[in-house]
Amino acid sequence: MKLKKSPLAPEKFPILPSIRGVNIGTSVSNSKYKSRQDILTITFDKPASVAGVFTLSQMPAAPVVFCKKNIVNGYANALIVNAGIANSFTGKKGTENNRIIANYFSKLINSRQKDVYICSTGVIGEQIPVSKIKKAVKHSLYGRNKNFKNAAKAIMTTDTFPKGSGKTITIDNEDISIVGIAKGSGMIAPNMATMLAFIFTDALIEPKLLQTLLNLGVRDSFNSISVDNDTSTNDTVLAFATGQRMSGKNTKPISRIGDKRLVKFRKALDYVMKDLAIQIVKDGEGATKLVQVNVRNATSISSAKKVAKSIANSPLIKTAIAGSDPNWGRIIMAIGKTKEKFSHDKLIIKIGNNVVIKNGELAKRYSERKTQKYMNNKKIIIDVDLGIGAGFSSFWTCDLTEEYVRINTDYRS
Amino acid sequence: MKLKKSPLAPEKFPILPSIRGVNIGTSVSNSKYKSRQDILTITFDKPASVAGVFTLSQMPAAPVVFCKKNIVNGYANALIVNAGIANSFTGKKGTENNRIIANYFSKLINSRQKDVYICSTGVIGEQIPVSKIKKAVKHSLYGRNKNFKNAAKAIMTTDTFPKGSGKTITIDNEDISIVGIAKGSGMIAPNMATMLAFIFTDALIEPKLLQTLLNLGVRDSFNSISVDNDTSTNDTVLAFATGQRMSGKNTKPISRIGDKRLVKFRKALDYVMKDLAIQIVKDGEGATKLVQVNVRNATSISSAKKVAKSIANSPLIKTAIAGSDPNWGRIIMAIGKTKEKFSHDKLIIKIGNNVVIKNGELAKRYSERKTQKYMNNKKIIIDVDLGIGAGFSSFWTCDLTEEYVRINTDYRS
Repeated sequence: MKLKKSPLAPEKFPILPSIRGVNIGTSVSNSKYKSRQDILTITFDKPASVAGVFTLSQMPAAPVVFCKKNIVNGYANALIVNAGIANSFTGKKGTENNRIIANYFSKLINSRQKDVYICSTGVIGEQIPVSKIKKAVKHSLYGRNKNFKNAAKAIMTTDTFPKGSGKTITIDNEDISIVGIAKGSGMIAPNMATMLAFIFTDALIEPKLLQTLLNLGVRDSFNSISVDNDTSTNDTVLAFATGQRMSGKNTKPISRIGDKRLVKFRKALDYVMKDLAIQIVKDGEGATKLVQVNVRNATSISSAKKVAKSIANSPLIKTAIAGSDPNWGRIIMAIGKTKEKFSHDKLIIKIGNNVVIKNGELAKRYSERKTQKYMNNKKIIIDVDLGIGAGFSSFWTCDLTEEYVRINTDYRS
Repeated sequence: MKLKKSPLAPEKFPILPSIRGVNIGTSVSNSKYKSRQDILTITFDKPASVAGVFTLSQMPAAPVVFCKKNIVNGYANALIVNAGIANSFTGKKGTENNRIIANYFSKLINSRQKDVYICSTGVIGEQIPVSKIKKAVKHSLYGRNKNFKNAAKAIMTTDTFPKGSGKTITIDNEDISIVGIAKGSGMIAPNMATMLAFIFTDALIEPKLLQTLLNLGVRDSFNSISVDNDTSTNDTVLAFATGQRMSGKNTKPISRIGDKRLVKFRKALDYVMKDLAIQIVKDGEGATKLVQVNVRNATSISSAKKVAKSIANSPLIKTAIAGSDPNWGRIIMAIGKTKEKFSHDKLIIKIGNNVVIKNGELAKRYSERKTQKYMNNKKIIIDVDLGIGAGFSSFWTCDLTEEYVRINTDYRS
C-alpha cells in the first residue's frame, strides 16, 4: 500500500545546525525495503553522555533490552538503527542477533560493546538478517557526514515525511546546538514497532543530569501525544551530549539541575522534543487535523493530563473532528468517564475561541455556526477549565479518519 | 444518515414468553423522531422488586440521578423510557423536567413518585419537550399489551435492529420466565447517550438479592463488552421481579444467594444478559465481525479481564480483524501494554483453533494461510493463555471498519 504524504506535513525539512562530535552514516541493507537507505549509524568523536527513555511494554524488543542494560554506563560511542524489522518477539535468537551486530560494530570502531546502542523498528516477530546488516553497518562508515536529513530518512518506516528539529542557543558566549530526529506514524504503525527519537547536543552535560532532563522533557512531549493509544514494543528516545562545544580547559560539565547554564538549554531541549512529538502526530495515520487539548485548573498536573488524554483518545471526539463537527456532548462524555475531580458549576469548555460551556452549562452566547466554521481549520484547540485547582497539561492527537482504518485493515504482505 | 442493518443482526426477533404482572405500552411523542413509536411505559400489576446498575460517568444524566435515588426503596410501579433526547447535561431545568414527567405519570397510575423509574436516551445537551412527552406517556396507557418486540423497538436510537432475549425455566413445578430488552449501538452512538437494558421476571425475589444478582450478572455481560471504549452519560440496566408466578400462599420470596431455587434462575438470568450484551456488540457501529477474546490462567479474574479488554479495545487489532489479517504482533503489543503478570515462557495465543504462539514463541506448526482463512469468519475467537494462574475472563467486541468512522464523522444535524 502506497501512502500519500500527510496533509499536515511541513513544507520542507528544516535547516539544522551540525553537532560537533557527531558523525552520520547511512546505507542500504536490502532487508525489508529494497534499494532504500534503511541503516543509520552515528559515531561520536569522543564518548558522549547518554540518557534514554524506553517503552513501558512488558514485551520489549531485543534492542530495547540491550540499550536498557547499557544505559547505566552513561557513555556512548555509537548508535545503530535499522528500519523495517523490529527484532521484537524474536526470542533468544533475536537477542543473540542483536548482540552479534553490536559486537561486530564495536570492533570496527574500537569500542566496548556496552558503549554501543542499537534500535530496531519495523515488523514484529521477524528475525533480522544478520549478515546483510553487518555488511551495511560497515559500509555506512565510509563517507560519514553531518546530514541529519539523510539520518531522519533512513529510520522511516510508514512515515510519510522525515522528522527533524533543531535549535542553537548561546551559553557563556558559545553556540550550543540541539538537534533531534524522530520516526513514528501512529503510536504503532501498520504492524510496525514504532516510535524512535534521537536527540544530539554538543553541550557538556553529565549523564545523570542528561537522564533527568530527558525524563522531564518526555513528559510534555513524547508522553503527551497519541494517535491510537496503542503502545509499541520498541519505543525509544535516546539523548546524546558530545560536550565538544564546551570542552575548553576551564569549562566544567553541567551536572546540577540548578546550574544557570541550563535555563536556556532546557527551553531549547523542550522545544526540540515537543516539535518532534507534534511532527509524529502530524504524520498520524490518516490524519487531516492536528488537535491540541489543554486542560487547566485541575487538582494536579497529572489529573489534568488524565482528562486531556481521555479527550484526546476518544474515538468519538476524533471522528467528530474529522467531520468538522463541534460535538461538545462527546467532550462532556470524555470528561465524565475519567475519575478526576472537577467543579460541575465552574466547568468551562472552549473550542478555539468559542466558549461552549460556561459555569457548567451551555454558554448563552454559544454559536454553533461560528464553532462549526472554526472546526474546518487544520489545527483544532480544545480548552477545558475544570475550575477546581491549578494543574495544567496539554495533549496532542490527530483526527480519526476512514484513511486510518483503510491503512490498518490493509493486509501486511 | 440512513443506517443499514448490521450484517451480524439475528434473522428475526426471538419469540419471548410473557411476564405475568408486566404491562407494556408504547406511543409516539413526535419529539426527536417523527411518526415513530419512541415512548415506552411499563406498568406493574403490583409493586415489583427493582435493582439497577448505572453509568460510572461523573456526568450522569438527569434520569440516571433520579433512578439512583429511587432505587434504594426497592420497589417499582412503572418504568418510562423516551428515545431521541438523553436529558443529559441539561442542568437544573433537565432535572425539573424529569421530575414533572415522573410526577405526572405517577398520578395517572396512583403511585408514589419514588416508585417510578425514568430512562432517557439520545442527544446530549437538549431539553426534553415536556408537554409532548406527557401527552405520549398518557396515551401509552391505552391498549397496554405483552408485546416485548414493540417495547424493544420503541427504545431504539441508532440501533439497526431491536434486541430481545428470554428464557423459561421450572422452579418447584412452576414456569418462571426472564425476558430482557436492550438498546445500544456502540458504547455511545452518534451523539447519542446510549446503552439501556431492562430485565423482567415473574420470579419472587427480594430487592436486595435482585441487586446482588444484577451486580454479578453485569460483570460478565454488559461490563464485558466494548465497541469504542467510550462511556455514555445514560447507561442503565434495570431488573424488575414481579413475583406473580411465585405468589402462592406457601411460596416464600427468594432472599438468600444460597437459595437452591436460584441455581437454574441465575443460569437463565446470565444467559439473557449475555445474549443482550452480545446483541449490542453485533449492532456495533460499522461492525462486520463479532470478536470474542478469552484470557485464561491469569493471576486473577480481574487481571484476565484487563488483558482481554486491552486486546478487545486495541484499534489496531480491531482494524486487522476488519481486514481479515491474523496480525498476532498486535496481540503481543496489546498484552505487553498492560501491567498484568504473565509467563513469558508459557504464553499461548490461539486464533480460532490455530495455535499461533506456544511456549512464548511463534508456534512451529503455525500456518499463516490457515489462520488467514479462519479470519474470514463472521465470529473470531482469540484465546490467550497467560500461563501464570487460574483467572479466566471473556470480553466481546466488534471489528473497526471505515463504516464506523463514516457514521461518526457524519454531522449531527
